[in-house]
Amino acid sequence: MATQDKTLENTQLKDIVSHAKEYGFVFPSSEIYDGMQAVYDYGQMGVELKNNIKQLWWKCMTQLNQNVVGLDAAIFMHPLTWKASGHIDSFNDPMIDNKDSKKRYRADVLIEEKAARLENEGNKEACDALLAEMGRLLEAEDLDGVRELIIREDIKCPVSGTTNWTEVRQFNLMFSTQVGSVAEDTSTIYLRPETAQGIFVNFLNVQKTGRMKVPFGIAQIGKAFRNEIVARQFIFRMREFEQMEMQFFVRPGTEMEWYNKWKETRKVWHEAIGIPAAKLRYHDHEKLAHYANAAVDIEYQFPFGFKEIEGIHSRTDFDLTQHQELSKKKQQYFDNDLNEEGKPYGNYIPYVIETSAGADRLFLMTLCNAYQEEEITEGDAVKTRTFLKFHPALAPVKAAILPLTKKDGLPEKATEIFNDLKFDFNMIYEERDSIGKRYTRQDLIGTPFCIAVDHQTLEDNTVTVRDRDSREQVRMPISELRTYIDKAVNFRSILEKLA
Amino acid sequence: MATQDKTLENTQLKDIVSHAKEYGFVFPSSEIYDGMQAVYDYGQMGVELKNNIKQLWWKCMTQLNQNVVGLDAAIFMHPLTWKASGHIDSFNDPMIDNKDSKKRYRADVLIEEKAARLENEGNKEACDALLAEMGRLLEAEDLDGVRELIIREDIKCPVSGTTNWTEVRQFNLMFSTQVGSVAEDTSTIYLRPETAQGIFVNFLNVQKTGRMKVPFGIAQIGKAFRNEIVARQFIFRMREFEQMEMQFFVRPGTEMEWYNKWKETRKVWHEAIGIPAAKLRYHDHEKLAHYANAAVDIEYQFPFGFKEIEGIHSRTDFDLTQHQELSKKKQQYFDNDLNEEGKPYGNYIPYVIETSAGADRLFLMTLCNAYQEEEITEGDAVKTRTFLKFHPALAPVKAAILPLTKKDGLPEKATEIFNDLKFDFNMIYEERDSIGKRYTRQDLIGTPFCIAVDHQTLEDNTVTVRDRDSREQVRMPISELRTYIDKAVNFRSILEKLA
Repeated sequence: MATQDKTLENTQLKDIVSHAKEYGFVFPSSEIYDGMQAVYDYGQMGVELKNNIKQLWWKCMTQLNQNVVGLDAAIFMHPLTWKASGHIDSFNDPMIDNKDSKKRYRADVLIEEKAARLENEGNKEACDALLAEMGRLLEAEDLDGVRELIIREDIKCPVSGTTNWTEVRQFNLMFSTQVGSVAEDTSTIYLRPETAQGIFVNFLNVQKTGRMKVPFGIAQIGKAFRNEIVARQFIFRMREFEQMEMQFFVRPGTEMEWYNKWKETRKVWHEAIGIPAAKLRYHDHEKLAHYANAAVDIEYQFPFGFKEIEGIHSRTDFDLTQHQELSKKKQQYFDNDLNEEGKPYGNYIPYVIETSAGADRLFLMTLCNAYQEEEITEGDAVKTRTFLKFHPALAPVKAAILPLTKKDGLPEKATEIFNDLKFDFNMIYEERDSIGKRYTRQDLIGTPFCIAVDHQTLEDNTVTVRDRDSREQVRMPISELRTYIDKAVNFRSILEKLA
Repeated sequence: MATQDKTLENTQLKDIVSHAKEYGFVFPSSEIYDGMQAVYDYGQMGVELKNNIKQLWWKCMTQLNQNVVGLDAAIFMHPLTWKASGHIDSFNDPMIDNKDSKKRYRADVLIEEKAARLENEGNKEACDALLAEMGRLLEAEDLDGVRELIIREDIKCPVSGTTNWTEVRQFNLMFSTQVGSVAEDTSTIYLRPETAQGIFVNFLNVQKTGRMKVPFGIAQIGKAFRNEIVARQFIFRMREFEQMEMQFFVRPGTEMEWYNKWKETRKVWHEAIGIPAAKLRYHDHEKLAHYANAAVDIEYQFPFGFKEIEGIHSRTDFDLTQHQELSKKKQQYFDNDLNEEGKPYGNYIPYVIETSAGADRLFLMTLCNAYQEEEITEGDAVKTRTFLKFHPALAPVKAAILPLTKKDGLPEKATEIFNDLKFDFNMIYEERDSIGKRYTRQDLIGTPFCIAVDHQTLEDNTVTVRDRDSREQVRMPISELRTYIDKAVNFRSILEKLA
């Protein structure tokens, strides 16, 4: 990537971050205490946008599909869960300390940075060889070898400038805490690093109490936590984040069919909420995780490049088998249909297709995609208009009710309209400043409709409705407003594309 | 309370807990690993009920009130937040260990149990005196005195039977964890024990970016965590729980007016979702927290007695003042209206009225209130019918579509109806078992409407709609179903009671 491009792209992200702060979408966490690294709060506009994304996903998953139901498992889980899933043993990053500067680094990042320098110097071959060797050593869990590689490549601490390195140690990314107050009963538990396991441990509870028949899915939205060493790119990688995951349980042998189905369905979803197909792509995993037999990312073209927003994984029967072994409780499903077909077996551990999306990443994608700057002429002047072109169904505020002036009974009339529509839509009433300034403010938070109440309104009960994207105004009877707005903002238009 | 009553009430709670498990409302967390104490998961029905409660609360707070907006602050916050709020110094329970059994107890609970025994023996005077003395000692933070009281009252360890007690120590109820991986940059942070502080530290961010004018409120729904020593009564007191809080910022001196307004509004809300007024009551706090100048609980009559479901607190300017002191950043609001009125000051730290509800407690209240057993006659037999009488707007599933038989094209017709209505409502399609059994199953999860598709449907496009509560059936055209269901399940009917 050329430097020029990179600068442009960083500028755009910077603009979006600053817009997000200024208009109440995303604030740095605990800002009055100078913030918490890699943690953010959603402001008054952000929380509405995020809730809309989550609710739409939820309806698409559970309401449209007869065979998908929801779940809300706790963040706290029994620690054996993470033994079974492999997180206790292998959810690690390799860390190394420099003895002179006392600074700690991710060993693999140090090597990757060296490789990047080699590539920049035109030595692509050496770069590839270095990365390949690192890959081999990490896979073999040869941490001494990683350290020797760092020293052999003469990689220096950026602070002390020396190669006086400690050994490489694995650092687990899970947050732990102590639960219980009774001395002999205190135990170490973890903040879940993924929501998926909450679904797996409840597989039979849901299947039995919901009388679900394979194939069926369980969907869940919830927080997960990772002690990320390199957290960056705004809300793209945070230490506390929210996942929207669905585990779909299928007959062994049918998993590729369902993998392809969900891979397709999920990409259509992103397009249905207004993301241009050209900004989305699939990225097959080159290397599969130990539990997977197929895996693909759906990537969105962020200002900082194509990055994963959702993963579709064929997880085989790995998780349920692991839980069966550790819990000593059968995780099998009795498939009565197979039994009736006279097949030799009716009992099996289902295979699993997972769709795993990051709610925060979808939020960032939606925000980046909505952020628009266009040149407009006002009289003789050419100005830049910034506005957020959200799909109306996702916009935080659906309509602003704006009396043209503060007198002549216009505020009262406008309030009357507000009070009639407020049961159906999230709206803003605003009477301060000029109408032009108020339109601008609504553009900046992405409100699709501005409803102006003027003197004619008092005469004939009509209002003007300004469209956010075209800036065009139409006059319509107050009595038509509800249907007009509902048509645009109702989830139905999106849901129908997915049915 | 007579023993007989207590038994009855415990039986009723036991029935509800077991119903909640059996029909997919609440599962013990990590049940395959024999559970986690005081942590629960919401199943496929529970998550829908809980989401409905949360969304209704959210709309009532933010959508109905022009001057209330939302927020979604992270669980992780800067540790100074909890210094400012007082949680680091005083969010403690007094603990004592028995040296022989090595068991640990809450010192105040040991004394309370002794007092209860005195009362049961008819010695009410001694009971009251003991509780009063404990109150004095705890308030004076005289932990040695508490220990002496335990020994003087000859309170024995239930396990060892001895009075060989250690000293009393304070045990902090916050969960802590380590964040950061770089050696010199690791710090202890806490899982928030309440969501309120996320609102306070963002007070100026929201006020400025949202151009809010006092009085205004910030509403938030989110998880909080407390390392409860005595966690009990199902989901009433959990270590991980969800709060729905609103902080309403007002001019100093006007706080009692707003306190009374919100106290009233919040009680009306509980009635609007179907809780009988007779099962709700106010309970004024006898002793105010250090930050409050007025506080009241709204209590619901659970099977285990009247217990708090929501608190309304007048928190003065305590929290914002504390944050101003610790952060060294002004937390003042400039009140332009006061300024224009020529009042001597325009800058002040607002006073705060808090409404703090437990989402899990409202869930449990809704479930307990919905749980109905009635005697019905079927032919000659008298049977007990159990059903969940949720307000239709809160019911997890709005309608079940039931073809009378599996043949003659009825499933196809029923599926057509399902596919038409699924964009608007969460529904179940079910063709297994007899229609009677299917009605029963829908009663047990509280589905307000059962729509049966029979042979007449094929002729005239009408269906029968069975009402959950009356069990009466009406025949109506398919084309009227959407309006019929929507009228009952739309939040609008509840919102209008609160406007």
